[in-house]
Amino acid sequence: MRTVKWNGVYPAVTTKFKENGDLDIPAFLKNIEHQIDAGVNGIIIGGSLGESSTLTHDDRLALLEATVAAFGDQTDVLLNVAEGATTAAIELVQRAEKAGAHGFMLLPPMMYKPTDQEVADYFKTVARSTKLPILLYNNPVDYKIEITLPIFEQLASEANIQAVKESTRDISNVTRMKNKFGDRFKILCGVDTLAMEELLMGADGWVAGLVCAFPKETVAIYELVKAGKIDEALEIYRWFLPILELDINPQLVQNIKLAEVMTGIGTEPVRAPRHILVGDERKRVIKILEDGIASRPILPDYKNL
Amino acid sequence: MRTVKWNGVYPAVTTKFKENGDLDIPAFLKNIEHQIDAGVNGIIIGGSLGESSTLTHDDRLALLEATVAAFGDQTDVLLNVAEGATTAAIELVQRAEKAGAHGFMLLPPMMYKPTDQEVADYFKTVARSTKLPILLYNNPVDYKIEITLPIFEQLASEANIQAVKESTRDISNVTRMKNKFGDRFKILCGVDTLAMEELLMGADGWVAGLVCAFPKETVAIYELVKAGKIDEALEIYRWFLPILELDINPQLVQNIKLAEVMTGIGTEPVRAPRHILVGDERKRVIKILEDGIASRPILPDYKNL
Amino acid sequence: MRTVKWNGVYPAVTTKFKENGDLDIPAFLKNIEHQIDAGVNGIIIGGSLGESSTLTHDDRLALLEATVAAFGDQTDVLLNVAEGATTAAIELVQRAEKAGAHGFMLLPPMMYKPTDQEVADYFKTVARSTKLPILLYNNPVDYKIEITLPIFEQLASEANIQAVKESTRDISNVTRMKNKFGDRFKILCGVDTLAMEELLMGADGWVAGLVCAFPKETVAIYELVKAGKIDEALEIYRWFLPILELDINPQLVQNIKLAEVMTGIGTEPVRAPRHILVGDERKRVIKILEDGIASRPILPDYKNL
Amino acid sequence: MRTVKWNGVYPAVTTKFKENGDLDIPAFLKNIEHQIDAGVNGIIIGGSLGESSTLTHDDRLALLEATVAAFGDQTDVLLNVAEGATTAAIELVQRAEKAGAHGFMLLPPMMYKPTDQEVADYFKTVARSTKLPILLYNNPVDYKIEITLPIFEQLASEANIQAVKESTRDISNVTRMKNKFGDRFKILCGVDTLAMEELLMGADGWVAGLVCAFPKETVAIYELVKAGKIDEALEIYRWFLPILELDINPQLVQNIKLAEVMTGIGTEPVRAPRHILVGDERKRVIKILEDGIASRPILPDYKNL
Repeated sequence: MRTVKWNGVYPAVTTKFKENGDLDIPAFLKNIEHQIDAGVNGIIIGGSLGESSTLTHDDRLALLEATVAAFGDQTDVLLNVAEGATTAAIELVQRAEKAGAHGFMLLPPMMYKPTDQEVADYFKTVARSTKLPILLYNNPVDYKIEITLPIFEQLASEANIQAVKESTRDISNVTRMKNKFGDRFKILCGVDTLAMEELLMGADGWVAGLVCAFPKETVAIYELVKAGKIDEALEIYRWFLPILELDINPQLVQNIKLAEVMTGIGTEPVRAPRHILVGDERKRVIKILEDGIASRPILPDYKNL
Repeated sequence: MRTVKWNGVYPAVTTKFKENGDLDIPAFLKNIEHQIDAGVNGIIIGGSLGESSTLTHDDRLALLEATVAAFGDQTDVLLNVAEGATTAAIELVQRAEKAGAHGFMLLPPMMYKPTDQEVADYFKTVARSTKLPILLYNNPVDYKIEITLPIFEQLASEANIQAVKESTRDISNVTRMKNKFGDRFKILCGVDTLAMEELLMGADGWVAGLVCAFPKETVAIYELVKAGKIDEALEIYRWFLPILELDINPQLVQNIKLAEVMTGIGTEPVRAPRHILVGDERKRVIKILEDGIASRPILPDYKNL
Repeated sequence: MRTVKWNGVYPAVTTKFKENGDLDIPAFLKNIEHQIDAGVNGIIIGGSLGESSTLTHDDRLALLEATVAAFGDQTDVLLNVAEGATTAAIELVQRAEKAGAHGFMLLPPMMYKPTDQEVADYFKTVARSTKLPILLYNNPVDYKIEITLPIFEQLASEANIQAVKESTRDISNVTRMKNKFGDRFKILCGVDTLAMEELLMGADGWVAGLVCAFPKETVAIYELVKAGKIDEALEIYRWFLPILELDINPQLVQNIKLAEVMTGIGTEPVRAPRHILVGDERKRVIKILEDGIASRPILPDYKNL
Repeated sequence: MRTVKWNGVYPAVTTKFKENGDLDIPAFLKNIEHQIDAGVNGIIIGGSLGESSTLTHDDRLALLEATVAAFGDQTDVLLNVAEGATTAAIELVQRAEKAGAHGFMLLPPMMYKPTDQEVADYFKTVARSTKLPILLYNNPVDYKIEITLPIFEQLASEANIQAVKESTRDISNVTRMKNKFGDRFKILCGVDTLAMEELLMGADGWVAGLVCAFPKETVAIYELVKAGKIDEALEIYRWFLPILELDINPQLVQNIKLAEVMTGIGTEPVRAPRHILVGDERKRVIKILEDGIASRPILPDYKNL
């Protein structure tokens, strides 16, 4: 069993589809290859950015198996689990474990606002159904459920609940978690536009979005911050911010797929009900991306700092 | 094909489970029988109140088939469709049509905040996959997606999109819809605590929650308002409000199942991740229900007003 | 001392200014005369709609004195009190009582989010500084402070706290107040777009905004509802809604002053920092008003129903 | 005329009152003396933390004059201007300029949600009424008005609008402002719990709250960050966070006054409608402060880094 380290950059990759909505595995693997070349530490499959809400369990397994087969010896391969029923989550987790997953990202129950105790019990029950390590996704803005400090306290005894994707937008939460739990839970920033800030405050890693189109710049910021080269990191990050803001948008999937096309490492088709970007919004996004690509910074040799 | 009238009371019924989480069809049908006796016009299966987020397609079909077999000649039997992918919605709709459903309640795509055009196209595509009539569910508070007037304008040409469950909490929306569309879309109030108000302002029906435990009182209010007996309706409604507020609560399912037990027409088990109510919150809810049951009003002969 | 009845329509009148920002008392009185002719029961001076945030105490007194002198024997004249410090509120209340005010509208402390106990004590202290009756203004949407039921419970022993301007937007609050307090506190709807709904549910009066430009239509709706002529009221109200929505807008003052100009009973100048409406927004509002004026309903003899 | 530098720490000091609500100037000056000893760069009088909503213009002038007389040669003395009417703001600004103020903090118009153009014009008009430099206060969370980038663009030509108190809670705004305006507007973090993060991202200064009770710790964090000693700063900041959170609370005034008492440099009385903290909330705050004081870190020689 591969040990997931929970630091560095973890792209939440987009799912590639053919025009008819079928999975496009070769295009999917091509993008992941670019991620690994850039130096990411793991891949998260089937997240929100991977159009989770349109993927069946079979789709998820197909993406997982292809990734493990191609890159399972080079990078952590994590599957996102976003289910409404506890039984459905366990079923998926157990199929994925057999299929070679290295770990999971786990959301609270979907489409229901549970009590704190229900959230805690859901996480515990799912965690106990697998030996693999788990990254919880704490995103009260989009999912209305906050994994509070008392919930984490309950979960501290579950050895395979190891990390949190911190997407509360409340950056003080990094400090609160460190004050309360030290290094018990690794903290991965889950909001592209807060990543440098949270890494500076002690976050361990970055579950990234725009990395899908700009893998090197993303990893460079991470490595520069960790090496204490803050001014250099800040220069890249300031350049990056208008692009990173495409992640903080209901059309983040479409934005990032378009960005991947413009940087040459992805494809654009999405599954219904999604449409690709059209009209003025498409123009606005293209302008931001063109401006960014035109002024792309020269990166230092960030793998050898 | 039964003609759905879209007026009167439509209970969004709870799903009955055994302690192990299996469907409990006899208990499910028993409650529906009480609804029909009280004078409701239709039954909505697998809504939020029916623990939609934990039901598989097979579960939904089993509930639907049993209801149609038992009561399909006495009442409208509608199935709730709450899916993330357009293909999944179509698949469910077509299975249900074959199984004898009379119509559908249809939510916008789940777990993704689509654009207005994506919402409109989703509804159109699903509507065109069936001959059955459809009630759209407009609940931006819980699902973050508002079906705006311009979206309804686009949908007016789809003959089988016939009604809306109005749960925006913005009661002026009843008047706006009537001003813009006259009777093109039937309006069913979807918020128990706003029902009398919206019926007075011209809403056609009531998709009700507490009706599951208090069917007669619910239908009585509807009939009294429609008969112009406002003072009589208001007296019952004022009595009912503290109980109706149990519907405006994240634990609405648990609240209403407990209410059904206390009025003798239901059972309490829920599916994980839900727990039944515990501790102080259970006491609080029981107190409200006990107070309400102790002061239950004597109803007029509301079926013959 | 005039007895304020707290039913019927109470216009929150706009303050009239000259182009240089000075008070324009004749224009102010002219509009009030139209209100009284239409059958309102009282006048509220210096409310939000009266550009409260730009009025000094001296301005308020000047408006009050002119109104009492001209119409004090025909209508209730109430002054709005919206202060940050308890001492400032008491000072204003006592000056106004000497100047002949019949009562007050009283907001919670401004520009500070107080605790419930601080709110209750503020109201009590101000109430005890005057013999005149008081209407509390409950508007948590705009002022972030809700006057909760427990606060009202504390205030029930203050005999001159007699009524509430209900602007919570939570229409169930009418029923909750009636259930808890019966007629102890008169309820005046403070949101134009919810007025008919709340009157139907038992509200006693209407603190109105668009009444400033459309006094007869406003009073007609009130009188028709109270006479049980709901269909007639509803027809006028449906016509009125697009105009009433001009009240639910940050530029409500400018909207309503423009409406007064278009119906011939007001003037448009506002005090800085406000500007009169310009550009597309001005066109949008004029269009709504023109459409409304063109289709103005013929009113029944609403004073003799 | 003293040149305000807009970097370093600017305490928004509390106003000291006697038990009867009168100003307590000696206690006020005593605290300021501790601030200056700790190394702050300026003092902001009459801010929200100074109970602005209860202060008359005369109160503000009295506080200003005493501070200028005592410390005007040692530190920047800025007056907060939070008015509803443009004329009232100008009147206060001009009185304060004559009284020896070095500059102003200026809020958008209070108690009215103006349009962006009204906000811009308000700031311009007030700025043109004085030669003194101005710090705008950008706090859409508490005041509902955001000073957007396009508004700042309009204001860039006003030479004495020099800085912004950044309290949007959207930390990306630091980067957006730097990307768009470079150093045209100095950025002072206005949220204690985001201060270290924003200083790391390039903010120039810190308008601080808990500094009132903990001046040395606050200045130490600022100086350590600016000297690149991030780990040392982070250690102090993590210790400080539970205390800093007392600033993000409706009772921030009461919390901070209690903290000042516990660190021996302030007094507790507040003006009505405020009460001092009572009951469980008082115990909760005392516990946080006692814990913090018991584990107070030993500071480095932060004035000579």
